[in-house]
Amino acid sequence: MEKVRVILWGLGAMGSGIAKALLKRSNVDIVGVLKVTETHRGETLSSVIGAGQSDVRISTDPDAVLKPGAADIVIISTASFTKTVKPQIERAVRAGMNVITIAEEMAYPAAQSPAAACELDRLAKEYGVTILGTGINPGFVLDSLIIALTGVCLDVQEIHATRVNDLSAFGQMVMRTQGVGTTPEEFQAGLEDGTIVGHVGFPESMQMIANTLGWKLDEIVQTKEPIISQVCRETPHVVIKPGMVAGCRHIAYGKQNGQVKITLEHPQQVRPELADVETGDYIRITGTPDLNLQIKPEIPGGIGTIAMAVNMIPLVCQASPGLKTMPDLPLPAAMLPKLVTTCKK
Amino acid sequence: MEKVRVILWGLGAMGSGIAKALLKRSNVDIVGVLKVTETHRGETLSSVIGAGQSDVRISTDPDAVLKPGAADIVIISTASFTKTVKPQIERAVRAGMNVITIAEEMAYPAAQSPAAACELDRLAKEYGVTILGTGINPGFVLDSLIIALTGVCLDVQEIHATRVNDLSAFGQMVMRTQGVGTTPEEFQAGLEDGTIVGHVGFPESMQMIANTLGWKLDEIVQTKEPIISQVCRETPHVVIKPGMVAGCRHIAYGKQNGQVKITLEHPQQVRPELADVETGDYIRITGTPDLNLQIKPEIPGGIGTIAMAVNMIPLVCQASPGLKTMPDLPLPAAMLPKLVTTCKK
Repeated sequence: MEKVRVILWGLGAMGSGIAKALLKRSNVDIVGVLKVTETHRGETLSSVIGAGQSDVRISTDPDAVLKPGAADIVIISTASFTKTVKPQIERAVRAGMNVITIAEEMAYPAAQSPAAACELDRLAKEYGVTILGTGINPGFVLDSLIIALTGVCLDVQEIHATRVNDLSAFGQMVMRTQGVGTTPEEFQAGLEDGTIVGHVGFPESMQMIANTLGWKLDEIVQTKEPIISQVCRETPHVVIKPGMVAGCRHIAYGKQNGQVKITLEHPQQVRPELADVETGDYIRITGTPDLNLQIKPEIPGGIGTIAMAVNMIPLVCQASPGLKTMPDLPLPAAMLPKLVTTCKK
Repeated sequence: MEKVRVILWGLGAMGSGIAKALLKRSNVDIVGVLKVTETHRGETLSSVIGAGQSDVRISTDPDAVLKPGAADIVIISTASFTKTVKPQIERAVRAGMNVITIAEEMAYPAAQSPAAACELDRLAKEYGVTILGTGINPGFVLDSLIIALTGVCLDVQEIHATRVNDLSAFGQMVMRTQGVGTTPEEFQAGLEDGTIVGHVGFPESMQMIANTLGWKLDEIVQTKEPIISQVCRETPHVVIKPGMVAGCRHIAYGKQNGQVKITLEHPQQVRPELADVETGDYIRITGTPDLNLQIKPEIPGGIGTIAMAVNMIPLVCQASPGLKTMPDLPLPAAMLPKLVTTCKK
């Protein structure tokens, strides 16, 4: 049986999760692992992630791992921003490999980096490979799923979607970038100095929706407010007393001729249930017909992102060359069993 | 501005709805209308459907309308079964036109007519055009939407989906084929003589899901039971007294190794609210993670089918030649404004 050969670049929480998922599949071979930092260099993949039977050694040397033709696809889980992952994507492409990345901005790089998107598209076509950015959000809940739902509409006037999730499972980095555990004053200061960022991906989801529907947004406005807790909330990483910040209520408005056409809300906090907030994904479309969708509880972010990266492998391998976005490709699906028969361009 | 040239074949409730939707778009030209029956022959489209400004004359002569190169795409809304629409599809294909049909069985013709599916695929490739069967159900709610949702799953153990709708808006034909207004004895007799059919499309939705996920179903079992009303229910077309049949509870089970992997339920009835039944579309996936989606009220069947037929036009025109199914094509979307720039193969 011919296997799909995968190189992983990045071995944080998401990269490790992708590795674990792939090691369970008999039709995939992880043939290389690249890390950005030196920790665990030279150790075996399985010893580092504590799963599977892989004796592939962790490397930090792209030249050694990305040998032309050594793999069918590289999955890049190293960073959130196009600027950071673009050189990594380019190295993989020049080695003749398809690329999936979960970098949030790469879900729709034309939104903030149109020149970079063009360069990547050109390079991918030159080397005959496909590049895709995906993930749970951006990539699915607040964009692809909305787009697919509009398929049953004769017209769409307005879109309003909300993803209410629980950050409790996440670690220090997420707490910091969402401002969890700060005072309202510290939260404000963090927004101003850029250490509190909220959700990464709103311009990408907005433009993915708008461009697919043929809308032209004049303006995208984002607001970030502290979710100030009325109750005590505790996680292994943080204790929030009443009056402190439990998370960030990040909202984006996409406007056309001064009118809001798309509203995407993403209040992210720890232990929302203690404030009687039910987690869930909610999509409301005003149009013909009106639509009202909910997924409760919300699709879990970590598993969802790992699954999207894994499940898109066969679709990316099969796609025509170039930089693709989720609306360019067939429906995502938990289709890995079919991967072998479909993974040749 | 170059317009997409469309021929409509079939002008029942769905065909007329598609005509009305297309007449509102400035980037589409309806260049021909074919009917199967003689009524309204020679009249103008707009006079027959009571909308728009189209003076295209209704024809019943395929040879006169399907002149090679006369249109980019034909939308066929004449019947539910592959056997009936296949010759119509073939005529359109031989005239060099792409085809969208809302015939339920054509949503996944390989399910019940694999040889016909192969023939259509071969013919479409020979003529360099694309054929797609779509609609709200089969085509979206109980198949494509489920498939897209599994994209966030690392594994899927079982799928259970239910579409609870209201038939009140439909006419005599639907009442008859669903057994609405019969006695329980008449319902039983109607099932036996084939006049009461329930939902058309379960084998198609089942096989679309199973094949996309790489599952092999050993058996598809269908049950049809009368929904016997406890209360009086009245519509313009029918009065149901307590003890009479308000609709058909049609369920399909897809089994693998004796175990049910996919359950699709579609209880169709008039005025469900009088029996305290809330309409809605419900999808429950057991896997990693579990998912629980609902759309309430349900996506309306008529508008939804019309929208799917219209919205898939650009995706079908752009697709590679052959017989396609929904999972082969990009995400559906209310994308008609973009149609012009994207409608050349």
